[in-house]
Amino acid sequence: MELGLVGLGKMGGNMRERIRRAGHTVIGYDRNRDLADVHSLKELVDSLQGPRVVWVMVPAGAATQSTIDELAELLSPGDVVVDGGNSRWTDDEKHAEQLAAKGIGFVDCGVSGGVWGLENGYALMYGGDAEHVAKVQPVFDALKPEGDFGSVHAGKVGAGHFAKMVHNGIEYAMMQAFAEGWELLEAVESVTDVREVFRSWQEGTVIRSWLLDLAVRALDDDEHLDRLRGYAADSGEGRWTVEAAIDNAVPLPAITASLFARFASRQEDSPQMKMIAALRNQFGGHAVESK
Amino acid sequence: MELGLVGLGKMGGNMRERIRRAGHTVIGYDRNRDLADVHSLKELVDSLQGPRVVWVMVPAGAATQSTIDELAELLSPGDVVVDGGNSRWTDDEKHAEQLAAKGIGFVDCGVSGGVWGLENGYALMYGGDAEHVAKVQPVFDALKPEGDFGSVHAGKVGAGHFAKMVHNGIEYAMMQAFAEGWELLEAVESVTDVREVFRSWQEGTVIRSWLLDLAVRALDDDEHLDRLRGYAADSGEGRWTVEAAIDNAVPLPAITASLFARFASRQEDSPQMKMIAALRNQFGGHAVESK
Amino acid sequence: MELGLVGLGKMGGNMRERIRRAGHTVIGYDRNRDLADVHSLKELVDSLQGPRVVWVMVPAGAATQSTIDELAELLSPGDVVVDGGNSRWTDDEKHAEQLAAKGIGFVDCGVSGGVWGLENGYALMYGGDAEHVAKVQPVFDALKPEGDFGSVHAGKVGAGHFAKMVHNGIEYAMMQAFAEGWELLEAVESVTDVREVFRSWQEGTVIRSWLLDLAVRALDDDEHLDRLRGYAADSGEGRWTVEAAIDNAVPLPAITASLFARFASRQEDSPQMKMIAALRNQFGGHAVESK
Amino acid sequence: MELGLVGLGKMGGNMRERIRRAGHTVIGYDRNRDLADVHSLKELVDSLQGPRVVWVMVPAGAATQSTIDELAELLSPGDVVVDGGNSRWTDDEKHAEQLAAKGIGFVDCGVSGGVWGLENGYALMYGGDAEHVAKVQPVFDALKPEGDFGSVHAGKVGAGHFAKMVHNGIEYAMMQAFAEGWELLEAVESVTDVREVFRSWQEGTVIRSWLLDLAVRALDDDEHLDRLRGYAADSGEGRWTVEAAIDNAVPLPAITASLFARFASRQEDSPQMKMIAALRNQFGGHAVESK
Repeated sequence: MELGLVGLGKMGGNMRERIRRAGHTVIGYDRNRDLADVHSLKELVDSLQGPRVVWVMVPAGAATQSTIDELAELLSPGDVVVDGGNSRWTDDEKHAEQLAAKGIGFVDCGVSGGVWGLENGYALMYGGDAEHVAKVQPVFDALKPEGDFGSVHAGKVGAGHFAKMVHNGIEYAMMQAFAEGWELLEAVESVTDVREVFRSWQEGTVIRSWLLDLAVRALDDDEHLDRLRGYAADSGEGRWTVEAAIDNAVPLPAITASLFARFASRQEDSPQMKMIAALRNQFGGHAVESK
Repeated sequence: MELGLVGLGKMGGNMRERIRRAGHTVIGYDRNRDLADVHSLKELVDSLQGPRVVWVMVPAGAATQSTIDELAELLSPGDVVVDGGNSRWTDDEKHAEQLAAKGIGFVDCGVSGGVWGLENGYALMYGGDAEHVAKVQPVFDALKPEGDFGSVHAGKVGAGHFAKMVHNGIEYAMMQAFAEGWELLEAVESVTDVREVFRSWQEGTVIRSWLLDLAVRALDDDEHLDRLRGYAADSGEGRWTVEAAIDNAVPLPAITASLFARFASRQEDSPQMKMIAALRNQFGGHAVESK
Repeated sequence: MELGLVGLGKMGGNMRERIRRAGHTVIGYDRNRDLADVHSLKELVDSLQGPRVVWVMVPAGAATQSTIDELAELLSPGDVVVDGGNSRWTDDEKHAEQLAAKGIGFVDCGVSGGVWGLENGYALMYGGDAEHVAKVQPVFDALKPEGDFGSVHAGKVGAGHFAKMVHNGIEYAMMQAFAEGWELLEAVESVTDVREVFRSWQEGTVIRSWLLDLAVRALDDDEHLDRLRGYAADSGEGRWTVEAAIDNAVPLPAITASLFARFASRQEDSPQMKMIAALRNQFGGHAVESK
Repeated sequence: MELGLVGLGKMGGNMRERIRRAGHTVIGYDRNRDLADVHSLKELVDSLQGPRVVWVMVPAGAATQSTIDELAELLSPGDVVVDGGNSRWTDDEKHAEQLAAKGIGFVDCGVSGGVWGLENGYALMYGGDAEHVAKVQPVFDALKPEGDFGSVHAGKVGAGHFAKMVHNGIEYAMMQAFAEGWELLEAVESVTDVREVFRSWQEGTVIRSWLLDLAVRALDDDEHLDRLRGYAADSGEGRWTVEAAIDNAVPLPAITASLFARFASRQEDSPQMKMIAALRNQFGGHAVESK
């Protein structure tokens, strides 16, 4: 089939390649002319035969919104837009309504895979009406990993990004689990080879997992991670997961602890711990560290 | 080689079978005469040619202590005792000293594998002096999974149980991660097929893991887990992990949250939340639920 | 001075009484005609001499919005609206802009005090332009407690509700602190009189506080809180506090733990702990409790 | 009455002064001859008329143990030893048994008050048999604050230190509550005067408390706490509280979060966050901060 693909960055570029390898035609547009097959959204739309499928793979928020605004003007009834970026699930229903007013279908799709996706395939979680999903299905089949799993029609519009968001929330807590365990092992004298302990866990244990494999790779590069700072960014998904939990009164203690650990990792000095120090000083004459 | 094995319950019995399949001789003792090859520890020791290796696989605490006390009297210098049970790592040094006073070696070994171990092998983490470990190595090789991983000499006496304990702490937080994500997905309307979302994650995602595979199996049995109560026991290892963290001033927020979630799951009614309700009632005339 | 007061429920009714005791004129409107001095917002506005001050004390959300919508039509340039309800601080700027377009001022005010406020005064945190605040000041002075403290001009529009929201977040964690301590004391045998321990803490300790006094009152009513269920509602402020923290990348582990404890207290059975039970069953053949 | 007091540091010295002000005789011993009334424990014991009461106020652990060992040899049946230090409650029963073997009574006493105790009195929580407590009662009455509260016979031997430990656990979470709230208020632009918000809360609010008063004092010294580092030590009691909770399967999420925040505050760089950074780098090619 033919696909229009908007956004040819690290993710989009590799996805174009994987879809082409599966025998489909991909016409890509990017503001960076060196990456692009066509040089405007209008040209992209004009190059495709209807009913068209246009996959949007640009940063969430303003960039995605303006792309969808423009596509709403350019596309025709019966066409379908896929938002494959990291949009917040709450945006999806708005986009679906905006496009439906023009007779254009909408599918939201969470994509996981990172730099490994080109070779191994991308895990896909998508939401939307069955008739719209059906039009995109050949592309989903090209992108997904080769085995029995790796893609799912998760539910209504928004369900794809919601499922991907929860995936990332789980990922935060799993990473935190390994990180906490690693720090504790490194802290004690009796365990003399923490890296080999991690390596051994790759078979026969309850915690064997891809993240464990990656941890071993990282430790093979830098046994005690001396070359890194204990500093971690967070993307929107972790925050949104906690917000969705609050909206639904679902307690998420481990995922939230993982998010907060990242916040704290980015503080040069902790304001709240200054207050703790100040209070200790007030009531107990406890020695505090001053600057 | 020859091995004496004390404790032939669910774990010990399967381990005897796996070691025998590897061509070694195992003489097993258990208080349950139906399971046992010999009918006393003395008979067990007398049946083995020196230097002997005796693997203790009985409940941690009093049962392990009394077995080691008795073996200290029966064994000879140059023999080695392995504690493969779930002993707290702090017990290991005491046992090593007690046996060393008689010239007997000691190795502690954490064993993971559960009901899957007989076929897939057991993950092994052991600690102790290299010369003592060497005497047990053929048994370790028989028990471990077939691949490159699955066993490790983690360090000094105690390091085996410590590494296994941390493994279990990590396991607690990984399970909690999937559980939190599952509850959140089940809570929202847009995601209409949570089980299929979990199934899809088994390939191409960051969170693919054996625990995820098990979650899918569980959901295949009982899609919304309606047949279960939200009640989870905890073994000693989770608690010990948090205690070890406190001893070493290592923050473990996600693992500890997972342990506390299990504690709370076992309370019919939460005393602390009664106090919250009482305080709300005092200051605000908030409606509280009375019995 | 003269004040128009919209909303004469438990809070509003007591506030009217306290302001009147201070010698001011209060004209109150409520949909419940038995409580009201006038029977429509129009009548309320017409009864006041300009420049008018109208205090809105109705439920946050739709009720507050529709009241402000109506007042925007009825009031005149130079009048001031105070939102004293539990509105989310993010609503305040919208309301301020909506009213400013008509030349009407806006002040947001968080009010704490509950059933004790009539006698002891209400703690007030307000935000807005100094000129608007000045017009309301006599009412603030009438409502606040008698001592040196209890009211503050916290900052710009929204700062009043934000400060009140954070107050409530702190309140959640302080209540949780006492609740956790109480449960732990009740759990051990050696402490034979937990209530008297709490009572003793009311002087000379670091933790003496009004909440502790209330805890003692509650225990005097019901020593072991046997008559209560461990069930706690949560108002919006706790949730908004965590959301504001996420927006600002501020880690709030204790306040969030307190919020999640309330969520969990309202679940008949915990879905996430069902998943934990299911996983334990899968990998270990652990006994789980079935229904 | 007559009291022997061992340990005349910051706490002990002030306590001697307060007891003397109440008209009692205090004979103090300290290794520092400048502070001491007598120059050995033997001289202390010989100076007191039987039945004697000796209050031990030295660091928990080895110093307390060796003092009790020596007193066990020097005292006579019918005498009573009070341990007023910060001993772990689990030590108390051992000390009680050791002394009971010589016919000597034992009372454990948790003392709160810090530098404010001399003037305001010390909050006291004690445990032990009623007959032993009775012998110490005049000293307890001299030390406690003047009001109706401030001292309690909490239960059996160990209950005094247990209650004091829980007090400190609650204190950790209350401090954390104010610290989190303060950081959040400081993080937003709309709130222009955080110190005045804290000051206002001292009357009419739910969170008014001595700790809040201290926070205001600290902010009056240093409005944004610029002169402090966000670094907080922890004494044993916070750790023991969490350990006691684990022993009793009581979930303590807020208190534990407060303890972990202190641990994290003392790390130059967080090992666990290095692992998070390493994993992000592995799977996503995320930019990480390297040294």
